[in-house]
Amino acid sequence: MVLQPIIQKPSYPQNSGHLYGLGVGPGDPELLTLKALRLLQAAPVVAYPVLEDGKSLARSIIADYLSGSQIEIPMYFPFKPDQSAQPFYDKAAEKLAEHLSASQDVVVLCEGDPFFYGTFMYLFTRLSERFPTEVVPGVSSVMASASVLGTPLTYRNDAFMVLSGILPAETLADRLKVADAAAIIKIGRHFSKVYAVLNQLGLTERALYIERATMPNQRIVPLKQVNLETVPYFSLILIPSQWQP
Amino acid sequence: MVLQPIIQKPSYPQNSGHLYGLGVGPGDPELLTLKALRLLQAAPVVAYPVLEDGKSLARSIIADYLSGSQIEIPMYFPFKPDQSAQPFYDKAAEKLAEHLSASQDVVVLCEGDPFFYGTFMYLFTRLSERFPTEVVPGVSSVMASASVLGTPLTYRNDAFMVLSGILPAETLADRLKVADAAAIIKIGRHFSKVYAVLNQLGLTERALYIERATMPNQRIVPLKQVNLETVPYFSLILIPSQWQP
Repeated sequence: MVLQPIIQKPSYPQNSGHLYGLGVGPGDPELLTLKALRLLQAAPVVAYPVLEDGKSLARSIIADYLSGSQIEIPMYFPFKPDQSAQPFYDKAAEKLAEHLSASQDVVVLCEGDPFFYGTFMYLFTRLSERFPTEVVPGVSSVMASASVLGTPLTYRNDAFMVLSGILPAETLADRLKVADAAAIIKIGRHFSKVYAVLNQLGLTERALYIERATMPNQRIVPLKQVNLETVPYFSLILIPSQWQP
Repeated sequence: MVLQPIIQKPSYPQNSGHLYGLGVGPGDPELLTLKALRLLQAAPVVAYPVLEDGKSLARSIIADYLSGSQIEIPMYFPFKPDQSAQPFYDKAAEKLAEHLSASQDVVVLCEGDPFFYGTFMYLFTRLSERFPTEVVPGVSSVMASASVLGTPLTYRNDAFMVLSGILPAETLADRLKVADAAAIIKIGRHFSKVYAVLNQLGLTERALYIERATMPNQRIVPLKQVNLETVPYFSLILIPSQWQP
């Protein structure tokens, strides 16, 4: 039982570049880690997901740290029920592979943490067998939200659950029933369903709502005053532990 | 509905120092955030939890960033079933309050994230009503472990659970049954119970074990080869999502 090397694949081609999945945190550029900043500034190639309009939240977080001479690769991945995103991941992976094969390191920017509900895993599964790959963990929006709201999330031996607002109401309720504390992510247009579940479980007094934690346009709104029409994707509901020290 | 100030308490005494709960991450000093480093280096007073022998993991993580001229406050909190830690929290809070009242900023070092299974909340509940307080979120050992193990933790709409190994076997089993992915923390001397639960649920093949993720003495050991006698407090088991992209 000795210390093992990380993701060792002896079959990597010689002199290939390194692939880094960089967690850039929840939104505040100061919540980048020192390691992510070092790797970002040293990388000749910077890739990031973009929306259909070409905008990138991940890039906006670290924009001030870019040198201006780095190659940028915007990657568009559709999230539509009627369209497979797989060809888009394939295409992006091949683009990154070109640079990696040419001995160029590539960093992929990931909001929050790369392995926690991100899109980086789709590139990771396509490339980590072919090129040396490292993931740099980041601050999750779940923890950042608790910090901003000024509420301890979990104590001692609490059972903590992260749930997606996309889940059916019954599934949400069943899982919330066995959690001491919880975060509900991906609320957006599912807010009214989530609210009904919280109401049914008597949790509306305890639950806290926040939009875009630590971003410039962060908003904290009492749960009962949330406007259903304007709930953004990057909003979440925290149900902090009831345990009191 | 406008942007609200964070933890606004108009009753703070004038010119009092600021209290900062700093997440210093899982162990690698490079996983500190830029914000935590800035506040740490600017603070005249640095407090941190210590073990009975006076050693502090949190301090060891950021030791290289200390100026040498900062006031240090080691805080000992017992974790013993037969001894209340409350008087120790009271005493530590009063010590910090002396500095805060004297207009000195105080940073409290917190392994991982301050509001996620930490001890900072015991100081937070005692001091945040009296002094301006800010929490700086950090990288959790849960996400850091997934990164080091090279395994995506959660996809899309997975239900993710964090559980303490201290919980009874039946509680652990019931909660794991409704999770798509999970992390079991605080394993230590509860390893054999946790292992039996994973075995019962058919999860031993999928579960991954790691000790002290990103620390210099990090160890990755196959779950079936873990030595029951030597499982440290800072070990955890990840059960990554089965979903494949």
